[in-house]
Amino acid sequence: MNARTDTEQVELANTALYDAMERGDLASLSALWLDSEDGEGAKNGGTDGVSCVHPGWPVLRGRSEVLRSYALIMAHTEYIQFFLTDVAVSVHADTALVTCTENILSGGPAEEGGALGPLVGQLVVATNVFRRTPEGWRIWSHHGSPVLAEPEEDPDAGPSV
Amino acid sequence: MNARTDTEQVELANTALYDAMERGDLASLSALWLDSEDGEGAKNGGTDGVSCVHPGWPVLRGRSEVLRSYALIMAHTEYIQFFLTDVAVSVHADTALVTCTENILSGGPAEEGGALGPLVGQLVVATNVFRRTPEGWRIWSHHGSPVLAEPEEDPDAGPSV
Repeated sequence: MNARTDTEQVELANTALYDAMERGDLASLSALWLDSEDGEGAKNGGTDGVSCVHPGWPVLRGRSEVLRSYALIMAHTEYIQFFLTDVAVSVHADTALVTCTENILSGGPAEEGGALGPLVGQLVVATNVFRRTPEGWRIWSHHGSPVLAEPEEDPDAGPSV
Repeated sequence: MNARTDTEQVELANTALYDAMERGDLASLSALWLDSEDGEGAKNGGTDGVSCVHPGWPVLRGRSEVLRSYALIMAHTEYIQFFLTDVAVSVHADTALVTCTENILSGGPAEEGGALGPLVGQLVVATNVFRRTPEGWRIWSHHGSPVLAEPEEDPDAGPSV
């Protein structure tokens, strides 16, 4: 097992996730999410173990609920582009942790006429957890959240807890 | 390996994390964070692999940066209590994923006089990733984010991406 190759593979899986979002490709996105039959999660919350938190949303659990949320987001998003920065990968055995900053540019459907809705920029940080499967690295958990302030600039003015 | 016992142990480790926060006990909190010498993270961002996102904050990486942030939060928090709800645990081999809702009641130091500052309620969702170590389950990654809306009530009005 070559750790360097693992790291590269995980980073590619992470990028593929955002590429699928940009293309509005729900089938590709579905294939990237873990489809586990180990049943462990099912004992502890009625799900198959995957979980997803979109920025500002509560926790979604289980493939069907997670994929439904992506379908909903895609249906309301005419255009979306992710510029990933500050990507860090930590691989341990068959699990990998990816943290990154999603610099998002998106636009909803136009409200009238044929033009694109107004473009909106968003700064989001994500923690993505992947598991190694015979088919490659698959995402187990995604958690994205809005960056509301930069505590580096003024620690005392940063968001609390 | 008893999966049921693993799940219980992970839930206890998760609770211990919030108990340490409530007590303002940085030493206990430090002991609960993974102290890895595997160096994998160090190759990919100069850290030892742990990561932490407080609600609204950017990603913090590495034990020293993460623990410094907790010391900062504790210094500015006179009172904090976590009511954990909707806790779900998914264990796979030596890694565990916990998602939960943190119903937080907190108060900062009083600005004048000796009384407690005003109490503030916050609704936060967290994804916590644990790793099994010889000393027990240790936290590898914490990601907390504010819940800004309930998409269940009106999907079209929910936060985007």
